[in-house]
Amino acid sequence: MPELLERVSIREVGPRDGLQNEAPVPVEDRVRLINALAAAGLSCIEAGSFVRAEAIPPMAGSDEVFARIDRVPGVRYTALVPNAKGAELALAARADALEVVVSASETHNRKNVNRTVGESVDEIVRVVTFAADARLPVEAVISTAFGCPYEGDVEPATVVALARRLLDVGVESICLGDTTGMATPRRVDDVLTRLDQGGLGAPEIGLHFHDTRGSGLANALTALRAGARRFDASIGGLGGCPYAPGASGNIATEDLVHMLHDMGMETGVDLEALIECALLAERIVGRTLPGQVMRAGPRTRLAS
Amino acid sequence: MPELLERVSIREVGPRDGLQNEAPVPVEDRVRLINALAAAGLSCIEAGSFVRAEAIPPMAGSDEVFARIDRVPGVRYTALVPNAKGAELALAARADALEVVVSASETHNRKNVNRTVGESVDEIVRVVTFAADARLPVEAVISTAFGCPYEGDVEPATVVALARRLLDVGVESICLGDTTGMATPRRVDDVLTRLDQGGLGAPEIGLHFHDTRGSGLANALTALRAGARRFDASIGGLGGCPYAPGASGNIATEDLVHMLHDMGMETGVDLEALIECALLAERIVGRTLPGQVMRAGPRTRLAS
Repeated sequence: MPELLERVSIREVGPRDGLQNEAPVPVEDRVRLINALAAAGLSCIEAGSFVRAEAIPPMAGSDEVFARIDRVPGVRYTALVPNAKGAELALAARADALEVVVSASETHNRKNVNRTVGESVDEIVRVVTFAADARLPVEAVISTAFGCPYEGDVEPATVVALARRLLDVGVESICLGDTTGMATPRRVDDVLTRLDQGGLGAPEIGLHFHDTRGSGLANALTALRAGARRFDASIGGLGGCPYAPGASGNIATEDLVHMLHDMGMETGVDLEALIECALLAERIVGRTLPGQVMRAGPRTRLAS
Repeated sequence: MPELLERVSIREVGPRDGLQNEAPVPVEDRVRLINALAAAGLSCIEAGSFVRAEAIPPMAGSDEVFARIDRVPGVRYTALVPNAKGAELALAARADALEVVVSASETHNRKNVNRTVGESVDEIVRVVTFAADARLPVEAVISTAFGCPYEGDVEPATVVALARRLLDVGVESICLGDTTGMATPRRVDDVLTRLDQGGLGAPEIGLHFHDTRGSGLANALTALRAGARRFDASIGGLGGCPYAPGASGNIATEDLVHMLHDMGMETGVDLEALIECALLAERIVGRTLPGQVMRAGPRTRLAS
């Protein structure tokens, strides 16, 4: 696969999207994990979110997390914010970038944030306006981009139109979220093809896959072949899916990196250090995580 | 992916390769599982092996399993045999086809069966000779085809030469085994390309992947795109890897079928019935299996 000899950017989302779906862990453990991830070479880490603590208890104390992490130069520590108030808190905490979320599906958006998609876009406009003054980049995650657990298939054209609208109102970049793990190689191909036809090439699009139905890395491979070069992943596969107890969370960062390095792609990450991070994450949450390479080791680690 | 609108054959290996790596379960449970798999539409099921019971206790009583299953017309019930003596036992048990195994790596073959690769091929010749008289087809599984846990990378040319040699001595077909989960999309591409150059097209080659490092379905997808149409898989991901406690076993049949059906490919299998089989397998072995679709359900199963 010589055409794939390139750089891939990974945003580590374990400390936010991962831990958000686990029982709450102490701030000091979150700080320790983030520091270990940065030391392993990850250059973008979703470190917390500024939502009401009552709504999402595991993310309480995100301000303290941001205050206590060792900032590594060149590493971007990002925060998820639900609204302009959250953006203010993230700025105060010295987040380097903001993430906002809106669903491609009306039903999911209403169930998730009790708003229409249009109302969420209006709120994103307020976040973007605030962030522009503060010179903070904003990325929009389009959730349920590959399917909605309530509505089923989501038309790729709907995703493209929403992406275009979000870029028009000033978000810096777009990430497609496979919120409940409904992506498949075919759906990934369909959505990225339609985006490309709409003038949004795969290299500009981030992909956020879950491994809920086992095809997480197959989906990532499909996106890579379509030209995608930005991926979200979660250390050890931290997280899980609220709709499917026992199901995997995000694709595991170390499994993704293992596959990418074997293809000759560069990530800037030290895989052995990353495996140590996964084992640390496992100790922190106190349950067996679904990551595979953390257990089997890289394929280059031989038996004696 | 219109080019993929085709038929894919699946050999279900859970009752042998899967259960072989679990604590022994009673014959009646093995029979119940095999009958359920056949009822779900699987047309090829590896039902047992004829090895010394002391060597592999979970496979003891394979003759009884074969005697007690309900034979569904059109379903091929296969048996793994280590030698001509095993082939005799499999014939007596009315197995429909035989599988033999030899490693692409000398070190793995010696550790596995205490023979050189050449000695294993000689034994396969004896099996094939016996099977020809009995009109039993023989498939040879080339293990460590994508890497050896002792020697590391295995040259694709070595795999091609061994495949050619096995076909020359009369085995009906070849399956490439990723014995310890060292396959990656790149390795799959490399080996299948080399086989194709050697006159062995992907459609004729079976693929046997484990999900030891998370890329099981990504490997299967790569093989599909190279033209492969025969896969081994294990219900619920039964099995595991002796070299990596806690690591996944074979790719889960229901996860593979879920991905294939979404691509519009035909398998002849009823996915919902297959999920019930995975849940049955989980009850039988009494531990949580790594299959994902068995937990999350197919992507078409919507929330209310």
